[in-house]
Amino acid sequence: MTGSELYFEDFSVGQRLTSGTHALDEAQIIAFASDFDPQPFHTDPVAARDTFFQGLAASGWHTASITMKLLVGSGVPIAGGMIGAGGEISWPRPTRPGDVLEVESEVLETRQSRSRPERGMVTLRSVTRNQRGETVQVFTAKLVVPTRPTP
Amino acid sequence: MTGSELYFEDFSVGQRLTSGTHALDEAQIIAFASDFDPQPFHTDPVAARDTFFQGLAASGWHTASITMKLLVGSGVPIAGGMIGAGGEISWPRPTRPGDVLEVESEVLETRQSRSRPERGMVTLRSVTRNQRGETVQVFTAKLVVPTRPTP
Repeated sequence: MTGSELYFEDFSVGQRLTSGTHALDEAQIIAFASDFDPQPFHTDPVAARDTFFQGLAASGWHTASITMKLLVGSGVPIAGGMIGAGGEISWPRPTRPGDVLEVESEVLETRQSRSRPERGMVTLRSVTRNQRGETVQVFTAKLVVPTRPTP
Repeated sequence: MTGSELYFEDFSVGQRLTSGTHALDEAQIIAFASDFDPQPFHTDPVAARDTFFQGLAASGWHTASITMKLLVGSGVPIAGGMIGAGGEISWPRPTRPGDVLEVESEVLETRQSRSRPERGMVTLRSVTRNQRGETVQVFTAKLVVPTRPTP
């Protein structure tokens, strides 16, 4: 699942990595939102029509969670796992039933630790797009990435 | 569920709002992570011991999703629903099995729209803490909030 392949040395500024895809449907949107974001525009296709979203939309946290699944499973398989202390997230456009999501990540910065040679920091901007190439989420995060162990 | 009670006029800078609580257990952590963040430190209590987290920890996206549930259900019940375009998120400390989470939100800024008198922008910092008062997440977001309709 994790992949666990990429070490700090494998990242370079400007590099792009593309994930697999995730097909989202109405049932998934309603199930996630019922647990974590029970608002009519995320849980009720009919009531959603008369809201800000003008139709059913996925919770932003659902889009974020699917993005994480794509990053971990295929997009950016970091050795030891993908570990971040946080970042900036935006949802410029709703995610809808029928959307097929894909994540493209770009390396913005790499910085090796002076005090801890066994790890470095990689700043990654991950853009989640639907099947029309429209951006539904941008997440920029600093990740802790291990350096390749010397044999 | 939504509450739908607070209008733009109900927010003022410095105001604090506290949510109900959510008790997290190992089964919830594993179930969420299996769907969205399948890494050993989130899915396997034994394998998690030898990782960065030194034991099972919830996915940050799980913490974020529970935070949203608490905000929507009790913490900040905004009229028409809680709608944000994004924000800054950080996880200073892992969320663990047995943690009981609560969210305290503070209003950082309020700004009425000049062009659209029916809405305003509220900047909210929501701090998620465990039962020991330790911060496990900070999320700062700008929210679109409707003004109170004139009768």
